[in-house]
Amino acid sequence: MSQTVRKGERTRSRILEAARVVFARHGYERATIRAIAAEADCDKSSVIQYFGTKQQLFREAVDWQVDLGELAAEDPRRQGESYLRSMLADFTDHPDVPMIALLRAAMTSEDAAQLLREKVTAGSIDPVAATLEGPDVRLRAALIGAVMFGVTVQRELLRLPDLAAADLEDVLRLAAPLVQQLLDTPHGAPTGDL
Amino acid sequence: MSQTVRKGERTRSRILEAARVVFARHGYERATIRAIAAEADCDKSSVIQYFGTKQQLFREAVDWQVDLGELAAEDPRRQGESYLRSMLADFTDHPDVPMIALLRAAMTSEDAAQLLREKVTAGSIDPVAATLEGPDVRLRAALIGAVMFGVTVQRELLRLPDLAAADLEDVLRLAAPLVQQLLDTPHGAPTGDL
Repeated sequence: MSQTVRKGERTRSRILEAARVVFARHGYERATIRAIAAEADCDKSSVIQYFGTKQQLFREAVDWQVDLGELAAEDPRRQGESYLRSMLADFTDHPDVPMIALLRAAMTSEDAAQLLREKVTAGSIDPVAATLEGPDVRLRAALIGAVMFGVTVQRELLRLPDLAAADLEDVLRLAAPLVQQLLDTPHGAPTGDL
Repeated sequence: MSQTVRKGERTRSRILEAARVVFARHGYERATIRAIAAEADCDKSSVIQYFGTKQQLFREAVDWQVDLGELAAEDPRRQGESYLRSMLADFTDHPDVPMIALLRAAMTSEDAAQLLREKVTAGSIDPVAATLEGPDVRLRAALIGAVMFGVTVQRELLRLPDLAAADLEDVLRLAAPLVQQLLDTPHGAPTGDL
């Protein structure tokens, strides 16, 4: 690959990273291409050249995928813990993750809310649902997402004191069984391997 | 009570209701006293007269309290269902509830986030914790809040399709047991009466 192409890719990456930071801090509507360019230390014209519009930049900046392969627990009875531990760790390690940007934007922009619905459904609910057996597969997968979302947002984003101050292992000890209950087929058998 | 006093209270109420609508739609920082006055169909000077500052108006507008007395289930084994049903119904019935305004604002304003922490802790976590027995009372109460928050926000606010399209009774059938599990003292005995 030529040096010019590599440099272009680095610039593109830098802009995406800057966009995540700006969208996460200011929300979708208050974010500007000018602010993103400044955060990326490049020209406004470069941002437009690579991404065209704020909307397109936003769609790419908040692109994320749950890789269930990475999260497969050796013991299916610990799958709930694996999912929840991973989601909480993601937020702890990467405070400006795409999810925060998207969530903030979704609160006040219907375009962003629709994008959030599409991404969460395709990126996490569909893959988890595909691993479930028994009745209510879609709703169970959606509730797994909702439960993990609630715990993660309140602990890591809103930082409600009782949750934020608790030891991660205590949170998992009490909350992972809830996720596991949704994963398990009624009458107790854990869902088979991924 | 004199007519003047009653009229003053009605105006004050109308302003608070208008504030909830404007804060819920625009978030804390983008909301203006001018917009709230317009929504309340009164003068900007009236808003300032009754509340002083946007910050004070915000604090009063998002004031809400969980009244656990209303939510006590006759059968303690159905307490989880009672809590969750009530929270979901609140959002369905009152789409501009104070919680939405506060949550949106908390995403981009640290002042609003701190207010949210105080209100949720005092208004719902403290009262629920007071009803629990056994270990981890604070964390269990906080997780009850987080689980219900996740389900409610994703179903009623973000309207993720699988959750929003599901019948309420199906959501409760699958999610109420999770709340109940946190309410129940380990080893299965439901928490005593409220």
